[in-house]
Amino acid sequence: MESVKPVKTADASPAIMSQTSHRQRDSRLDELIPDMPKGPLDLYRNRASFDWKEMRFLMEGEDGLIYKGKVWSILTQDPVFHRSQESLTLAQERELTARRVKRLMEYEVFNFNLLAGSPFIIQWFNDAVGMYDWSLAAKMNLNVAMFGSTVRSSGSERHDHFAVQCETLEICGCFALTELSHGTNTRAMRTTATYDPSTEEYILHTPDFEATKCWVGILGKTATHAIVYAQLVMQDGTRHGLHSFVVPVRDTNTLQALPGVLVGDMGKKLGQNGLDNGFVSFNQHRIPREALLNRTGDVTPDGQYVTPYKDPSKRFGASLGALSGGRVGITSMATTNLKSALTIAIRYSCVRRQFGPTPKEELPVIEYQMQQWRLIPYLAAAYALHNLSTYIYKSFVESQISRMMGDKSERQAYLGREIHAISSASKPLAGWTARDGIQECREACGGHGYLAVNGIGKLRDDNDPNCTYEGDNNVLLQQTSNYLLGVAQGKRDGQTLSSPMGSIDFLDDMFNIIKHRFSGRTEQDMLNPRVSLDAYKWLVVYLLQESAHKVQSQLGNGKDPFTARNDSQVYFCRSLSLAYIEHTALQELYNFCQNPDITPELATILTQLCALYGLWSLEKHTATLYQGGYFSGSEPARLLRSAIITLCGQLKDQAVSLIDVFAPPDGVLNSPIGSSDGKIYQRLYGAFLQNPGSLERPSWWMEFMDKPKMGSRDIPEAKL
Amino acid sequence: MESVKPVKTADASPAIMSQTSHRQRDSRLDELIPDMPKGPLDLYRNRASFDWKEMRFLMEGEDGLIYKGKVWSILTQDPVFHRSQESLTLAQERELTARRVKRLMEYEVFNFNLLAGSPFIIQWFNDAVGMYDWSLAAKMNLNVAMFGSTVRSSGSERHDHFAVQCETLEICGCFALTELSHGTNTRAMRTTATYDPSTEEYILHTPDFEATKCWVGILGKTATHAIVYAQLVMQDGTRHGLHSFVVPVRDTNTLQALPGVLVGDMGKKLGQNGLDNGFVSFNQHRIPREALLNRTGDVTPDGQYVTPYKDPSKRFGASLGALSGGRVGITSMATTNLKSALTIAIRYSCVRRQFGPTPKEELPVIEYQMQQWRLIPYLAAAYALHNLSTYIYKSFVESQISRMMGDKSERQAYLGREIHAISSASKPLAGWTARDGIQECREACGGHGYLAVNGIGKLRDDNDPNCTYEGDNNVLLQQTSNYLLGVAQGKRDGQTLSSPMGSIDFLDDMFNIIKHRFSGRTEQDMLNPRVSLDAYKWLVVYLLQESAHKVQSQLGNGKDPFTARNDSQVYFCRSLSLAYIEHTALQELYNFCQNPDITPELATILTQLCALYGLWSLEKHTATLYQGGYFSGSEPARLLRSAIITLCGQLKDQAVSLIDVFAPPDGVLNSPIGSSDGKIYQRLYGAFLQNPGSLERPSWWMEFMDKPKMGSRDIPEAKL
Repeated sequence: MESVKPVKTADASPAIMSQTSHRQRDSRLDELIPDMPKGPLDLYRNRASFDWKEMRFLMEGEDGLIYKGKVWSILTQDPVFHRSQESLTLAQERELTARRVKRLMEYEVFNFNLLAGSPFIIQWFNDAVGMYDWSLAAKMNLNVAMFGSTVRSSGSERHDHFAVQCETLEICGCFALTELSHGTNTRAMRTTATYDPSTEEYILHTPDFEATKCWVGILGKTATHAIVYAQLVMQDGTRHGLHSFVVPVRDTNTLQALPGVLVGDMGKKLGQNGLDNGFVSFNQHRIPREALLNRTGDVTPDGQYVTPYKDPSKRFGASLGALSGGRVGITSMATTNLKSALTIAIRYSCVRRQFGPTPKEELPVIEYQMQQWRLIPYLAAAYALHNLSTYIYKSFVESQISRMMGDKSERQAYLGREIHAISSASKPLAGWTARDGIQECREACGGHGYLAVNGIGKLRDDNDPNCTYEGDNNVLLQQTSNYLLGVAQGKRDGQTLSSPMGSIDFLDDMFNIIKHRFSGRTEQDMLNPRVSLDAYKWLVVYLLQESAHKVQSQLGNGKDPFTARNDSQVYFCRSLSLAYIEHTALQELYNFCQNPDITPELATILTQLCALYGLWSLEKHTATLYQGGYFSGSEPARLLRSAIITLCGQLKDQAVSLIDVFAPPDGVLNSPIGSSDGKIYQRLYGAFLQNPGSLERPSWWMEFMDKPKMGSRDIPEAKL
Repeated sequence: MESVKPVKTADASPAIMSQTSHRQRDSRLDELIPDMPKGPLDLYRNRASFDWKEMRFLMEGEDGLIYKGKVWSILTQDPVFHRSQESLTLAQERELTARRVKRLMEYEVFNFNLLAGSPFIIQWFNDAVGMYDWSLAAKMNLNVAMFGSTVRSSGSERHDHFAVQCETLEICGCFALTELSHGTNTRAMRTTATYDPSTEEYILHTPDFEATKCWVGILGKTATHAIVYAQLVMQDGTRHGLHSFVVPVRDTNTLQALPGVLVGDMGKKLGQNGLDNGFVSFNQHRIPREALLNRTGDVTPDGQYVTPYKDPSKRFGASLGALSGGRVGITSMATTNLKSALTIAIRYSCVRRQFGPTPKEELPVIEYQMQQWRLIPYLAAAYALHNLSTYIYKSFVESQISRMMGDKSERQAYLGREIHAISSASKPLAGWTARDGIQECREACGGHGYLAVNGIGKLRDDNDPNCTYEGDNNVLLQQTSNYLLGVAQGKRDGQTLSSPMGSIDFLDDMFNIIKHRFSGRTEQDMLNPRVSLDAYKWLVVYLLQESAHKVQSQLGNGKDPFTARNDSQVYFCRSLSLAYIEHTALQELYNFCQNPDITPELATILTQLCALYGLWSLEKHTATLYQGGYFSGSEPARLLRSAIITLCGQLKDQAVSLIDVFAPPDGVLNSPIGSSDGKIYQRLYGAFLQNPGSLERPSWWMEFMDKPKMGSRDIPEAKL
């Protein structure tokens, strides 16, 4: 038996990988990375100026390639994972996904020991399985990583057995925070846990149906235990705020609901329907005193509340700390979806021909300026976001390791705040970029993009919640702007600005940057990523000043701080957060390109992608650049737009190889028009014929042939 | 038996309706329009400054209200149309939709006589049934309106029986143009119809599988006949281009495919899955000589080709003329989807509470600036697009009536070109605005927007093809810019510009308009819709000049006209078409507001909506306004954005009543969180419990309880 070996270091990331010199083509590339099959896409593959396997190695790293290769071997070769076009009911989708969870567990690709061996496993696992099916990834993740890790990080030794049992499905654990009438406002949750010292139990209770816990992943059908967030109430009525408890909800032998627990399935969602989201309410449900996850507070047997935190708001923050990894993960998940959609749309666009300069000669649609402009900037965004996710994840891992080591330094605290600020913006940026990019891919593939078998719809539906869960995107952005407003205040108070990840260091020069003006003169100037980097630095500073001024003027008008902040979001704080994270993504991709160990071929392409991502993102802010005087006259906008078109044209012949870098195997991607051999029509036509019952008369044909009697029914009276 | 009476005039449109004075509240309103139920939404309904029933009457007209009321009575009261949360397979969805088609036919709400009596019936039918289910509307439409009308308009007396038979489902007809490898480039279709004078038959043939007809609505399961577009080939090999034929494809008794016909179902789509899209290919399939729809060309029994058209390209245009109504209809369909989504999101946002200035007081989320900015501009857009669709549809009806009357005047020809230009841009504008608005509604409802039962996903999925069919949006926009470039050339050649619909009349003053500059000084100025109307006039002229110059300079660089035009799309021709149609929408809403017969209460609100739509749309063009010098300095962008926020705030208390105007009955909308009584949590919780099997243990519980043996499987070797 072979199982996946954990890697030995926490450094298996692109930036580190690139420290190996690739000037000699690595002989391992062909062992690690299968060739692409021959076919119509060779037209473009032959035009690429770089070795796509080198790029893939650079992006993924050897250990990541090995791990993902193993997972993909399972997913493409084990029949349990094979997909057909058979139309499944919701119940069947859930059954199939549960079966696949068990099968993946038998291959042991994902458990606490592996995670402990390499913190990158979870990213690789999500990438590899997510490209196949997010419901499957989530169903594994929520039990092992979310439930198991939260128990370990928020509980103590008395809870260890829960974490161990969930890994073998002895129990199946979920995470219940959101209530029917409260999501974003977590502090307002209304479920209560009242301590009864006479029996040393908590009485878990749902005061009314609006406090029903809902949206709990894997609770709909399979969870036996839930981490439930509830307001801790002592017998004398004293309240200590939100705490989490491990609560048995279903019998581990029969899978039936326990007495006092009303638990069910929320039904069909817009996507991820292999995942069973559930709801639960409690009717005086008693759980033992030990159920409280007691890292941040506990209750003694006789009913005394004890906590190492004096400030309840700090305790609350610490208890929710386990969630902070979610946003980091979603940044990567959304990027993965964008990669899959682009794989389909770019391959399709390089084979699909329509119109041409003469009636006899039709061009591949990627040759059209419009198609290039629709797709290639998103390809650049996929590279920028891939690099951004890696950058954030590395810092997140560092902070988690330091936390486990007991590091209570100022730097460690600041790192936590910076990751919070960055991930609260990177998750919206990635979620929305994927949302828009997937939709553009759908439309760029025309009607064929609308056929379910081609897979873009599933990507759209499965990516959609990335804009909502772990914090609504627009609300999350406020976390980032609040952080940045604090940073700017610090500068005005005379502080030197420097952060652990360096994302705000440039703001130390803010009083100087704000005086800068756009200095590009030629289109050639614009092809250098520094042009958009400079513009972004000015933009962030300008929006920071404008936002601070806006909040102040609202306060000056007599508004309370809550209202003043809310009334400064649109066009101010919201734009600030987006500009900041776009700058960060751009700066990090630029830094990555500068690494002297990257071959010149790869560096050239990456720099073009960086330039395009910068200009294309910046273009959305053109109005503000003019408003603030950074741009003036007609030339800046003209040069900016012209350079975007030029870069799209330059990258057009590279696009197939650039997406080969990220593409999963065909059996994982599961899209006839996105297949790696480019035989889009053969495969699509094959799908038509393999569609079950495609050529058959419908079973209800007789009912249909029984002709309607026109006018035989009276229209009912309207009910007013 | 009661059936729907056709209205007597073609004038039952908002603009005409408004000629009735509404200064006295019309006593019929309460008979025509049911009251809204009491509930939490009263908070906002009581704040509205206008009578929503008056607005509804103004928008829909009496005859439209009566017709839709009848259709909605059927859909809400006949059990065949009731929806449950039962999870259906694709086959079941199609069966149910076919059953509903037959049932609707028994009520006789839609047939050729009704359409002939009032051309507005089809709009009302689509509105009323589309709000319930687009698959059902399409399945009716494609057979009766698309197949039937095309047979009537493209054929001759010898085809009349087809049109009659499809109305009673004696036959079921569809429309087959698109092929697997060709869609947009219609002239490149490769199916052939070769005339054999010895038997007086055409031999219909599909040369290879890439020429398989596909995307044919209702062909998957139920069509017996298809209008097939094929290249007409004479026995001597002479080709006469694309012609249409009525082709039997399935036996009308057994519903089995005819010999020589391979016909099947394409499978699941991203939406509209009650509609069975099919594919068909022909293997030397013989059809009689009379099958040719011979309005624009015919073949004599001995094999002579005869046509009234000398220019084959004109003949081709005329033969595709039957399609022009499609874009007009889609403009309205997309608008309808936007209305439904906003009904859900606005009602939800006025009941959902989250956070507040103090922990005890939570605000309805519509009170937040951010939520207002996300939703209320789309509400304004729904009004603008509603009015735009009506305006275009009236002209379309006029042109169709004139055509039937044999009008061959210059004005009639110009009207056709103008409708083509407008509808080629209004369809993209409405399709994309609905796409983005629906998505914003989904996200604005948070997780609950992601639950299928709440209905926003269905709207997204069903609206999606509006961006693709009847012409990809981006490609269609080229039709509009080509028209506008021709208009501008006419002006330079000394013509006076004046069009039947008046949409380009302002361009007659283009040399003067281009000198205009933004003159708004205060936010108060900005609240007048004339500010954005003036800006749009300048913008269209500027983009027209820039686009003409761009094309010329590309030609000057030696590019052929095909390439020069393609390389002038992004930022030039594409933006031009969008600016032109946004201006048209805005101008028409402004004109509508000026009608002196509208009550001051309604006029005030409509003018606010007009101002908001104008500024919000214009804001997307701010960069170009600066680039061209219409804007300069920081004030214009600042005023523009500030006025958008102000208008959103002013309209916030009107939003519920403004959406009540468009909302269908709850049974049609089918969304717990969008219900008219505002009892969002009660209804959503009810849906949880009514979800079939919600509280039950899954049937596969035993398989799940059989624990996986960790590490019991070997990971297969990768297949390189």
